[in-house]
Amino acid sequence: MQSQSTTNEASLLGLGAMGAALARAAATKGRRLTVWNRTSAKAAPLVAAGVTVAASVAAAVAASPVVIVCVTDYAATRALLEAALLAGKTVVQLSTGTPQEARELAAWATARGARYLDGAILAVPSQVGGPHANLMTSGSREAFAAAEGVLAEMGAVRFVGEPPGAAAALDLAVLSSLFGALLGFYHGARLIEAEQMGVDGLGELMAATAPAIGEMIRIDAESIHHGRYEAPEASLEICWRSMDLLGRHAREAAIDGSFPGFAAEMFQRGITAGFGDEAPAAMIKVLRAASAQKGAR
Amino acid sequence: MQSQSTTNEASLLGLGAMGAALARAAATKGRRLTVWNRTSAKAAPLVAAGVTVAASVAAAVAASPVVIVCVTDYAATRALLEAALLAGKTVVQLSTGTPQEARELAAWATARGARYLDGAILAVPSQVGGPHANLMTSGSREAFAAAEGVLAEMGAVRFVGEPPGAAAALDLAVLSSLFGALLGFYHGARLIEAEQMGVDGLGELMAATAPAIGEMIRIDAESIHHGRYEAPEASLEICWRSMDLLGRHAREAAIDGSFPGFAAEMFQRGITAGFGDEAPAAMIKVLRAASAQKGAR
Ligand SMILES: NC(=O)c1ccc[n+]([C@@H]2O[C@H](COP(=O)([O-])OP(=O)(O)OC[C@H]3O[C@@H](n4cnc5c(N)ncnc54)[C@H](OP(=O)(O)O)[C@@H]3O)[C@@H](O)[C@H]2O)c1
Ligand SMILES: NC(=O)c1ccc[n+]([C@@H]2O[C@H](COP(=O)([O-])OP(=O)(O)OC[C@H]3O[C@@H](n4cnc5c(N)ncnc54)[C@H](OP(=O)(O)O)[C@@H]3O)[C@@H](O)[C@H]2O)c1
Repeated sequence: MQSQSTTNEASLLGLGAMGAALARAAATKGRRLTVWNRTSAKAAPLVAAGVTVAASVAAAVAASPVVIVCVTDYAATRALLEAALLAGKTVVQLSTGTPQEARELAAWATARGARYLDGAILAVPSQVGGPHANLMTSGSREAFAAAEGVLAEMGAVRFVGEPPGAAAALDLAVLSSLFGALLGFYHGARLIEAEQMGVDGLGELMAATAPAIGEMIRIDAESIHHGRYEAPEASLEICWRSMDLLGRHAREAAIDGSFPGFAAEMFQRGITAGFGDEAPAAMIKVLRAASAQKGAR
Repeated sequence: MQSQSTTNEASLLGLGAMGAALARAAATKGRRLTVWNRTSAKAAPLVAAGVTVAASVAAAVAASPVVIVCVTDYAATRALLEAALLAGKTVVQLSTGTPQEARELAAWATARGARYLDGAILAVPSQVGGPHANLMTSGSREAFAAAEGVLAEMGAVRFVGEPPGAAAALDLAVLSSLFGALLGFYHGARLIEAEQMGVDGLGELMAATAPAIGEMIRIDAESIHHGRYEAPEASLEICWRSMDLLGRHAREAAIDGSFPGFAAEMFQRGITAGFGDEAPAAMIKVLRAASAQKGAR
């Protein structure tokens, strides 16, 4: 009973848009939660949901075996945790950052006697607590075992590996494709407007098409994983031709041409490198060559 | 019986990768098909599937009430159809092009006495004939009624409006978002490689995440449709911050930074224009302003 009560306890530092959603999701599922936020007023609405408000970071950390942090970034996280005794604690860091930042914080927290789990939230606050909030974690397996219960109340949680940077890397990689899709969509929306058509219709079509796009990406990922770029159904040159057509339309319709310009230029690099007849996934070879030749740019 | 036999007939010009797939899909479903291709050898494998090979474009067009064209582009389509008598025919053009090209060909074909339907295929050849091949059409409703039967054998066909350019516009808009997602994914794949992780895992994650991305785009499309950009869960500035972080990671990991550079620059334009606190969909206002100020660029 004693240990049951212990594992039911967690502390959460940070009650911004995301932290508040995390706190509410766990508290409404009966989790005994202690919270702290720099601007203490933000804790008030959560008291009704049953959370305990700590007077300091040190007190919040002392209150529970599992300490979850969701603030702006890693620098803020480190600044907060400096003030607390971490020995024996499970620290779960959910703020967005780079894999390198995750590795550094893992080393720092471990040196102070904590078990460290890094996490990334693939969701907006209103999705938190539901099945569409994907929560990826990586780092200490023991930390994951200790925190899994409370994290599962916040979203669909999965452990993606022991390297502490793994969750942050997958998060950044998904964001890269997501924002690519969005920026391409904004151009598409502008195109549809310019043709006097309704953008809502494009939204419905994109929602219907998205699973097929995900499947294309999965197949491209397999190509890259196995290093097989031959016998494509749609070649890299056809991709360039589509983006060139998109640029031609932008000129025809007198709309902004930034997106098609960028996209055509990228695929042009693939053709220049001699991959025009290969699968679009051969673009990875262009990106590899660029880093080998130019390093950081 | 006479009219039944007539509606079972269609002709198809163009047997490239896509045209051959279209022909095979219809022929294996029992459609009586007449085909023609500039390089006649490409018709041979289809004869076993029961198609009839015409000796000329004029003969192929004469053979059926519905004439489908799938060649490289509109210029090639027009060059082919010049040689045929189009009066009374239903012409269905499935080659990729701009809305303007669709409008011009519609006017040209109509002036020659044909009913014109423009179409776009959102699929790769191996998907043709199955439920994942989306076929959008626009133009004459009568032409759609005449061609719907044979087109439905090639994919999931829908009529998106009477303006002949509508299908081409939706096609380009979807391609814009698709290629944005792909280019973002290639950067993400390079990032995952650089972190010594498997790109196949990213592919699985993207396939799982794609429906949620489609849903985000649908919500953004609603924002744009209603001109409502307030009270976002994730602001345009947060998008910029994510892409800035992606650029920082690229420098940290010494990988190509083209994609994050482009994406951060686009969102930076939104912040500069004063939309940092609004929903990401406010990017449409940036693109509108760009066309108003600069026109074609
Ligand atoms: N919102 C989303 O859609 C979303 C989605 C996925 C991931 N995330 C990530 O979740 C994290 C939090 O995002 P959010 O949306 O909650 O941001 P937010 O609404 O801007 O809240 C930021 C939080 O960080 C705190 N903070 C910042 N600097 C601090 C410092 N030096 N010392 C102490 N506290 C500090 C703020 O405290 P005050 O209240 O005192 O300012 C606030 O609690 C970010 O890393 C974000 O990338 C957000
Ligand atoms: N493949 C895809 O994944 C895909 C997906 C969606 C849409 N599409 C669109 O479908 C159309 C055809 O694509 P595809 O993949 O079949 O291309 P493809 O394999 O390159 O075939 C091109 C076809 O066009 C013919 N052609 C080109 N110029 C011609 C001319 N001047 N006169 C007569 N015939 C000419 C070719 O005849 P020859 O055989 O004699 O060269 C061939 O039949 C394109 O507009 C493409 O954008 C393709």
